[in-house]
Amino acid sequence: MKDQKCAIGVDLGGTKIQAALVGGSGEILKDLRLATKAGDGPEAVMEKVSGAVRELLQGTERSPAGLGVGVAGQLDPSGETVLFAPNLAWHDVPLQAALQRQLELPVVLINDVRAATWGEWLFGAGHGCDDLICLFVGTGIGGGIVSAGRMLEGSSNTAGELGHITVDLHGPPCHCGNRGCLEALAGGWAIARRAREAVAADPLAGAPLKKMAHGREDAITAELVARAAQAGDPLAEELVAITAEALIAGTVGVVNAFNPGRLILGGGVLEGTPDLARRIERGVRARALQAACQDLQVLPAELHNHAGVIGAAALAMRRFGSQHFSEQEHVVGSTGDA
Amino acid sequence: MKDQKCAIGVDLGGTKIQAALVGGSGEILKDLRLATKAGDGPEAVMEKVSGAVRELLQGTERSPAGLGVGVAGQLDPSGETVLFAPNLAWHDVPLQAALQRQLELPVVLINDVRAATWGEWLFGAGHGCDDLICLFVGTGIGGGIVSAGRMLEGSSNTAGELGHITVDLHGPPCHCGNRGCLEALAGGWAIARRAREAVAADPLAGAPLKKMAHGREDAITAELVARAAQAGDPLAEELVAITAEALIAGTVGVVNAFNPGRLILGGGVLEGTPDLARRIERGVRARALQAACQDLQVLPAELHNHAGVIGAAALAMRRFGSQHFSEQEHVVGSTGDA
Repeated sequence: MKDQKCAIGVDLGGTKIQAALVGGSGEILKDLRLATKAGDGPEAVMEKVSGAVRELLQGTERSPAGLGVGVAGQLDPSGETVLFAPNLAWHDVPLQAALQRQLELPVVLINDVRAATWGEWLFGAGHGCDDLICLFVGTGIGGGIVSAGRMLEGSSNTAGELGHITVDLHGPPCHCGNRGCLEALAGGWAIARRAREAVAADPLAGAPLKKMAHGREDAITAELVARAAQAGDPLAEELVAITAEALIAGTVGVVNAFNPGRLILGGGVLEGTPDLARRIERGVRARALQAACQDLQVLPAELHNHAGVIGAAALAMRRFGSQHFSEQEHVVGSTGDA
Repeated sequence: MKDQKCAIGVDLGGTKIQAALVGGSGEILKDLRLATKAGDGPEAVMEKVSGAVRELLQGTERSPAGLGVGVAGQLDPSGETVLFAPNLAWHDVPLQAALQRQLELPVVLINDVRAATWGEWLFGAGHGCDDLICLFVGTGIGGGIVSAGRMLEGSSNTAGELGHITVDLHGPPCHCGNRGCLEALAGGWAIARRAREAVAADPLAGAPLKKMAHGREDAITAELVARAAQAGDPLAEELVAITAEALIAGTVGVVNAFNPGRLILGGGVLEGTPDLARRIERGVRARALQAACQDLQVLPAELHNHAGVIGAAALAMRRFGSQHFSEQEHVVGSTGDA
């Protein structure tokens, strides 16, 4: 007999694996963290995930409803296979079947950013709200969209790529091949790139940043820019201002397009840069259509690094936790009504 | 006994009122068109709408299920009142109650662009597709989003303002108060503005356009730019190229964010400008995330000027056409499940 009130969540990234036993209110009962060592290949990484799950199960009397795995990559529409995960160097890895075989638990896969959105929606800053957007600004930028109480998935399961909306059609190239994407202006890698270029272009103004990076331009990171701005370095403050402008432009666009009731801001860059979230809120309120933001709440994400494991576990609880629930879900999912 | 298989649709704009009796397959059984004369005030315009509906009903034996009215403006979330309609100069007009009183028919109000999206979805280029975006590029730019078989409404009923996503954060001012909106670069009014500025800045290059406008710079319109480009005028071709770049940037963003199965392109600027839709399709396929557009179809809108009346009537049929249907809709709408 499965315990309907808990599940295991895994957040599988290119550098680390987080795994947690999560209770029915989103509380973490037990968790652990390992290095992914993606270079060892998919089989080794999958074994490592299975090992982490077994370790979580040892010494607990609870029998989780299932396992949810958030993956930093693109899944096939059926959610069985990781089509492409650049940070893991995975192509077409049948992760769901492999984990189910190894663990004898039902497994649901989900994109990691969407997992984090599930977490914030059900147990974090989005609790109780049926129309929300989560925007996570870290090294990359991603998001999730909940509209009328449903997570948008899109036609081929890739909805929510908010880092790749164009905010500056004359802007710098993005990793995705396009230019002027929000991520190419405000993602952590883009902030670092712009900072290194600025330091190279103006060594005098860049001296404090370079000093903080121990003299190595290539060691300048977004996190270092944030710290320098906090310390009052003018170049770093300017870099943060440019980042803020891009994030305002992007969030104004998504607020106008989706009309969310809550805009939830998370991720390392937002959490690490003083005043950035407040600037975004001020900018959105000043520039978005009044009708689209009159009832808008702008809130910081609450679950931080745990949003992914909590959201993945929550999805497993919803999917596998109750036959009654699954049937209801099926009925709703099968109507084509609006 | 109401006829479940037809309804009346009205498209209420600042300059004209279209009204049609629409059958259950989206076919127009009878239609008419009047000048709005918004300057006569809301009471007079509402009387005119009622008169048009009565005229449609005269001499027909059909008894429509209800009336759907698409309004070029912003509605309150309950859909009873027109909060603001700039082209009608309306503020807080209780249109639903007034029309129900005058006509003794059930009335549903909807934003005009969303009505057109309903039309294309049910009876036009979107037929049979559960994940689509309609982008209408006319004097202004608006859109509608259908995801997993539901029209997105947003938290306060304003979802779909795709003309006001930022595509150039350093771009020109928009009527909405922001800058660099898609509409401020590619809406008909913005194309005309850019053309007039270009003609003023380079009278020699601008001579053909000015001549087509009978010597009056202020008579240069987007439609005239399209005709001049078709005739091979280099300045007009350049203006169209700039418009195309903006529309590509905007559509790439919405495709990445929403992952629609179909992108439906309509509106006067798109229909009137040779090759513009094809350029957008090429640009989206080249620049959007591969995963987001691998199954994407890019299609021209099919219902043209009738999308609004057909969509408004379709909504009335769905809303009032069948008690059974309404109950189903209620059940689906009341679950908070994803």
